Amino acid sequence: MGILVVGTVAFDSVKTPEGEANDAIGGSATYFSAAASFYAPVDVIAVVGNDFPLASLDFLRERQVDVSGLEVKEGKTFRWAGEYAANMNDRRTIDTQLNVFSGFKPVLAERHRTHDHVFLANLDPDVQRDVLTQAYCPDRPDRSGRPGVVACDTMDFWIEGQRTSLLSTLSGVDVLIINDSEALQLVDGHNLVRAAERILELGPRAVVVKRGAHGATLCTRDAWFGIPSYPVADVVDPTGAGDTFAGGFMGYLARSGETGVGALKRAMVHGSVMASFNVEDFSVRRLESLTEAEITDRHDRFMEMITP
Amino acid sequence: MGILVVGTVAFDSVKTPEGEANDAIGGSATYFSAAASFYAPVDVIAVVGNDFPLASLDFLRERQVDVSGLEVKEGKTFRWAGEYAANMNDRRTIDTQLNVFSGFKPVLAERHRTHDHVFLANLDPDVQRDVLTQAYCPDRPDRSGRPGVVACDTMDFWIEGQRTSLLSTLSGVDVLIINDSEALQLVDGHNLVRAAERILELGPRAVVVKRGAHGATLCTRDAWFGIPSYPVADVVDPTGAGDTFAGGFMGYLARSGETGVGALKRAMVHGSVMASFNVEDFSVRRLESLTEAEITDRHDRFMEMITP
Repeated sequence: MGILVVGTVAFDSVKTPEGEANDAIGGSATYFSAAASFYAPVDVIAVVGNDFPLASLDFLRERQVDVSGLEVKEGKTFRWAGEYAANMNDRRTIDTQLNVFSGFKPVLAERHRTHDHVFLANLDPDVQRDVLTQAYCPDRPDRSGRPGVVACDTMDFWIEGQRTSLLSTLSGVDVLIINDSEALQLVDGHNLVRAAERILELGPRAVVVKRGAHGATLCTRDAWFGIPSYPVADVVDPTGAGDTFAGGFMGYLARSGETGVGALKRAMVHGSVMASFNVEDFSVRRLESLTEAEITDRHDRFMEMITP
Repeated sequence: MGILVVGTVAFDSVKTPEGEANDAIGGSATYFSAAASFYAPVDVIAVVGNDFPLASLDFLRERQVDVSGLEVKEGKTFRWAGEYAANMNDRRTIDTQLNVFSGFKPVLAERHRTHDHVFLANLDPDVQRDVLTQAYCPDRPDRSGRPGVVACDTMDFWIEGQRTSLLSTLSGVDVLIINDSEALQLVDGHNLVRAAERILELGPRAVVVKRGAHGATLCTRDAWFGIPSYPVADVVDPTGAGDTFAGGFMGYLARSGETGVGALKRAMVHGSVMASFNVEDFSVRRLESLTEAEITDRHDRFMEMITP
């Protein structure tokens, strides 16, 4: 079963205590699909400007990623610039240029409606909902016509500025994958346990709280599951870790075809493993060189590290 | 097998978003022994002033705690006052009065030398070493004459001001149980994986890094084990959580009599469970009312929450 991801393909300029990368390939859809491609076929919908070197996505094409849904528009590609603190957990945005991404209206092709797994990366919640509406397909085995597993991400910008629209989006997704600080902000709370409970009341049947170097937590109405992050001794660049996590998470769910709590737990572990690789180098470099054998090896080690 | 703890018995004045407690019973030895008493007999060595209500420790006497090693000195008891931020993880110290604790010279009685488990709470590292020297007993089954498992804690004050003495103490302990920020400070690092590796080179065969609401991590030369914290929806007062963790951790090791990695992992889980109770109320209130059945129940739930 395949995955549809709608998000950004972008240029990132990143400064960390380990060095810097300028105008490197980034974007939520890029990180997500690079990770998910190890598990299942992925269809990407995004937009870039005509300054974007399409060949830089060849490593995705060589895997199971269909990037034909990447729209190339006259103008400049979305650019983000940021700098990380010494602890590699705190960062500040130096510059954001939406460029062609401003006014992005994804259009789904027929084949995009065949996927049972959909990831709506951090986007305007109106756009997220529009994609979900387009993904509706009466031919689906499930009579609802909607994809089996819809997950989304969001950020402070939408929580502050588009709360009503965001709540409407959340009422229609299965899994919210969100940072800890943003989970608290979403419900105006201070305690993550309470925050997760309240988010579940908004619609999702599962909430995944990403805690950066501190791990990740899964909450459903009946279960709670927490894991640390895989111990990486040499973190080079945390950019994209959250989207890589989501890629491993959704990738595992798509590959297994399962939706129960056990599968969600295993998906958390795969998400963490993929994120742990991504932080080892700038941009998508580590995901480019990554092999199945490395993933399996680290997954097995990590299971030992978290099994009591 | 019993446990010897050397630390503070004190008055705490604490303000948290959930309320405040003034001159409430606290201190590292109090929290530690309240938790450890559920697992093994505990001998406490500490000092209080003649303003201390000794009856407030009756709940410890009723369990397996021998507080006859508590010295009562003319003068005032050690007092700490602090305030917690809304996230319950950050705190600031408002006032510290050492009082009779200043110049504390623990004197071990003969029976204190029979314990195979020793916890040196956060103290002057010179004092910690002096206790270890006194705990030497040629009659021990192990020809070394030293207790089987010695664990210690420390804090920024000693790391900054008494580094050489602290390093000497660390070279003689088996387990360092330390906060994340202080683990980084100890080796002047930014990454906890590297920090733990470097601490292991200083002597301990295991390092337990306490991460507050983010969980705890165990590192030995051969193994790494991480757990989240038990999800507490209503945190009232985090004071003493670290010492309560240490109490559950050392308590489990003493009860099991094991020292391998498997036992250290299980001890981590018990430490987390005990700490999770402690934060549910001010001072030692929750530990006073706690029952074996509640511990077993939460331990079982927690195991489900962390088993992948």
